[in-house]
Amino acid sequence: MLTELTPQECVDFVNSASLGHLACAQEGQPYSVPVRFACEYPYLYSFSMPGQKIEWMRANPQVCLSVLELKSDHDWRSVIVTGRFEELPDTPELHTTHHHAWTLLQSRPNWWEPGAIKPDTTPGTTSVAPVFYRIHMAHLTGRRSSPS
Amino acid sequence: MLTELTPQECVDFVNSASLGHLACAQEGQPYSVPVRFACEYPYLYSFSMPGQKIEWMRANPQVCLSVLELKSDHDWRSVIVTGRFEELPDTPELHTTHHHAWTLLQSRPNWWEPGAIKPDTTPGTTSVAPVFYRIHMAHLTGRRSSPS
Repeated sequence: MLTELTPQECVDFVNSASLGHLACAQEGQPYSVPVRFACEYPYLYSFSMPGQKIEWMRANPQVCLSVLELKSDHDWRSVIVTGRFEELPDTPELHTTHHHAWTLLQSRPNWWEPGAIKPDTTPGTTSVAPVFYRIHMAHLTGRRSSPS
Repeated sequence: MLTELTPQECVDFVNSASLGHLACAQEGQPYSVPVRFACEYPYLYSFSMPGQKIEWMRANPQVCLSVLELKSDHDWRSVIVTGRFEELPDTPELHTTHHHAWTLLQSRPNWWEPGAIKPDTTPGTTSVAPVFYRIHMAHLTGRRSSPS
């Protein structure tokens, strides 16, 4: 049986998740990649090494995150989040928020995975600094399939 | 250890996959949803009930598919596909392709899941016809993380 999730169920689901597929867009071309995150509604925190995703989100902060929990083919939850990218540089103005993001993310076991580093670099030895960012979640919709 | 996949490894991976997150875009806003598919390179076949995803892809056929196989936090493969949406209506001109898509997809166990139907409809009883489509895969990139 397929049902819509309530707004609160969407928030609870995303708050408990840590892996999603984040889509951005440039000149009509979407680009979607798996990301690890830490969520404290209404913000979702993550980081990445500089690259296409970061460049595109800097140019156009409109993003969409798709999160799926698939227990079995007939037992799953899916939430779609539309929101806005906000970079969190370690400036005096944003230091507290940057540090909060860092604290949340470094407590996760999957710190470096997946897509957070570039191939052929070793975690911890790269000289390029990761970009911390958050997604301000504006709209969430979700569905649940339950075994009938 | 993180390495780039070769073009052939990307193709082999997507050919063997059946679940991804498909992103489309409209006026700079990306929209990403989980989809089931059947892949025969260079095409990826799927279907959906009419809705936002189909409307947006009809208006702008540029799409991106993100496929992740996560065995563990340090053992995963990820492929990003950019491509073009092509609708497959059951017209005389496209009947063979439509039927091929139908045959490929109906052999999969997850025919109706996830997102293929609307909430509050029962598979097989809806009077709205699903939209068959394929993605012509134009560009694939991928990465693998192996336990070191």
